[in-house]
Amino acid sequence: MPKLSELGLALRESPIRRVLKIIADAKASGIDLIHFSAGQPSLPPEDEVLRHTVEVILKNSLDVSSYTPTMGLRDLRIMISEDLKRYGGIDVDPETEITVTEGASEGMLLAILSTIDPGDEVIIFDPSYVSYPFVIEIARGKPIPLIVRVEDGYQPDVETLKELITARTRAIFFATPDNPTGRILDIEAAKAIIDLAVDNDLWLIIDEAYKHLIYEGEHLWIARLDDAWERSIFINSFSKDAAMTGWRLGYLYGPREVIESAIKFKQYITLCSNTPAQIAAIKYLQPEIKEIVLERTIKIYRERRDVMYDAISKFLPDAKTIKSPGAMYLFVDMRSYLEKLGINDEQFAEILLKEEHVAVVPGSGFGRGGKGHLRFTFVGEPKERIIEGIKRIADLLEKLETGKIKQPSIT
Amino acid sequence: MPKLSELGLALRESPIRRVLKIIADAKASGIDLIHFSAGQPSLPPEDEVLRHTVEVILKNSLDVSSYTPTMGLRDLRIMISEDLKRYGGIDVDPETEITVTEGASEGMLLAILSTIDPGDEVIIFDPSYVSYPFVIEIARGKPIPLIVRVEDGYQPDVETLKELITARTRAIFFATPDNPTGRILDIEAAKAIIDLAVDNDLWLIIDEAYKHLIYEGEHLWIARLDDAWERSIFINSFSKDAAMTGWRLGYLYGPREVIESAIKFKQYITLCSNTPAQIAAIKYLQPEIKEIVLERTIKIYRERRDVMYDAISKFLPDAKTIKSPGAMYLFVDMRSYLEKLGINDEQFAEILLKEEHVAVVPGSGFGRGGKGHLRFTFVGEPKERIIEGIKRIADLLEKLETGKIKQPSIT
Repeated sequence: MPKLSELGLALRESPIRRVLKIIADAKASGIDLIHFSAGQPSLPPEDEVLRHTVEVILKNSLDVSSYTPTMGLRDLRIMISEDLKRYGGIDVDPETEITVTEGASEGMLLAILSTIDPGDEVIIFDPSYVSYPFVIEIARGKPIPLIVRVEDGYQPDVETLKELITARTRAIFFATPDNPTGRILDIEAAKAIIDLAVDNDLWLIIDEAYKHLIYEGEHLWIARLDDAWERSIFINSFSKDAAMTGWRLGYLYGPREVIESAIKFKQYITLCSNTPAQIAAIKYLQPEIKEIVLERTIKIYRERRDVMYDAISKFLPDAKTIKSPGAMYLFVDMRSYLEKLGINDEQFAEILLKEEHVAVVPGSGFGRGGKGHLRFTFVGEPKERIIEGIKRIADLLEKLETGKIKQPSIT
Repeated sequence: MPKLSELGLALRESPIRRVLKIIADAKASGIDLIHFSAGQPSLPPEDEVLRHTVEVILKNSLDVSSYTPTMGLRDLRIMISEDLKRYGGIDVDPETEITVTEGASEGMLLAILSTIDPGDEVIIFDPSYVSYPFVIEIARGKPIPLIVRVEDGYQPDVETLKELITARTRAIFFATPDNPTGRILDIEAAKAIIDLAVDNDLWLIIDEAYKHLIYEGEHLWIARLDDAWERSIFINSFSKDAAMTGWRLGYLYGPREVIESAIKFKQYITLCSNTPAQIAAIKYLQPEIKEIVLERTIKIYRERRDVMYDAISKFLPDAKTIKSPGAMYLFVDMRSYLEKLGINDEQFAEILLKEEHVAVVPGSGFGRGGKGHLRFTFVGEPKERIIEGIKRIADLLEKLETGKIKQPSIT
């Protein structure tokens, strides 16, 4: 066999995807797992959205099964533009400043390919969503991590950020609200970051996949801040608030030049996005439907977050986290427990799955700054099971401490 | 604004996508175009496939809207494996040797990213599908064109191919049946290419998107030929025979090492493919359904091909083409007409659209070897309109020759 590409050989499997595979196996064996792992909403999309989509699929079968323009159906781009105006108060031209994408995932790749050349550096917050460093590497760029800490509420330290900027830096890439930390970026930090971007002629690549899942405060619409628009590209998704993960749909918005470049790349990467998903998204974006969905979803997710946060405070008193104001996760610093036991987050997550049937994502999957942390999804289980899951974690820690479970089973 | 990436600036818009945009505008203005342009089947997917999919979407709304494993639903991979056995007589392991993709488009990118490093050369036939050179460039490789000619039935000249191989060559990338030429690769040429690949330790990247659209002879299953499997990766699609273009689904098969690499890249490019599309594809691959679809489709498409071929022979006697044994296109050498008029294929296609409302794709979009050619899709229109469209082309040529239409309107 001829040799494989260096990058393909070097690429690490996504830790989330790995957990999902183990979970699928467990499911096949009939094991009842408590799910704190996936970035998967536990509510299905709104029934009216699905019923409408299904109707269009049957009534309009040839059109719905045909290619759309690469940038997406015009009606969808118009709805997105109106939605950005309604929620964000920003004016985005549906003809030139928006392109639909294959979920936020493809959006990240298109944004990076459009803004950096091989060898360029992109500063990412660490921990951050697992894909960021790899997407940068696919574009032959270099991810430069800026560690963020639970003690700072996972806010970036702007002075440290400044020190990381070199002549090769081309972009700063982060999410707000954040996965995995749940942080909403402070407006003061955002303004300082914009100033740094202006001074150093950098792009801001901003992942807004969770912008509608906010439990306290509000989404930070960076496009509204002075000097931001002309150097920003915004990554969005229908996976989270619309609960359409499996439909693989998202969008980018930003200045027309960068969107134009993203569309050209998309022509050769996926050609266009799934047409039925675009039909569904048009329906979801109808104000009366989206409002109902958001109201219902936020209420349920906020309750679950509160329950999980309280359970952690009660059963894992030495763990540190923030009460995430957004997204779907608590990112929990478990070092005070794990260091005593001499095991790392990956090992602990594995024993937890095997012994207690609780699935979490080890924090080191999100970067060096996530070592000794665990990511707990709080949206995937009802309240009783959330409490039960956290209790089992405390139980396992006790069993490990008292030697009831031996650690060497881990390799 | 910070500068855009060099590659994004250099990337050419896909000529097919450009034509599609003009067509969309014409449609919006109520103009009745004759469509010889898109790679879009004119029949919708089988009704039973759609009805089943719709039923599952409503009944199983949370699962259908959730992520699948990156490599695709297990049931789908099993059906693909059985399908490859049934039609191709080849054994492909659904657990390790198949991954679903976002149509053939993503498959191409995953295959190239998995097999080449920056600076490596990939030999492509020229003309070839528009994406090949750009996908190679996204992976920072270099496309090396091998011109194929209508006089040779668009078969590659193996001696010339041999001369193009250098120390940097890593792969040979082609389609059979071919888009745009309709060629099925000769088995002797295939064997010679495999020998060259063995001698030079090259990958074969084989686009089989049209493998079920065959009007004479049969698909060349390269995986069955000696020494091919361990150096080949096969790109497939549900867009063409299943008529699911807008659902964006395809698959790769090949040795487990290269599929494993492709899956890792896919994790960071699209994460997983559209779930409803996977449900639809599982249904389509049921032998009794697929057989009915293929029988009906091939009959209609073959008749249309024959009508178009005969009309070209009659109304454009100096044009040269082959009676495509596969795919959906006649690739027509129009140089004897266009050179006399002093216009190129792009200019002619543009006048044809404006003056005669016939949409074709200019051949130079498919590479240097396509200059002076036009790609005619024969599947998109009923027989009478095919004849009418070819007549209008002959009419336009006459008007241009006799000066009834002035050429300088073209820029």
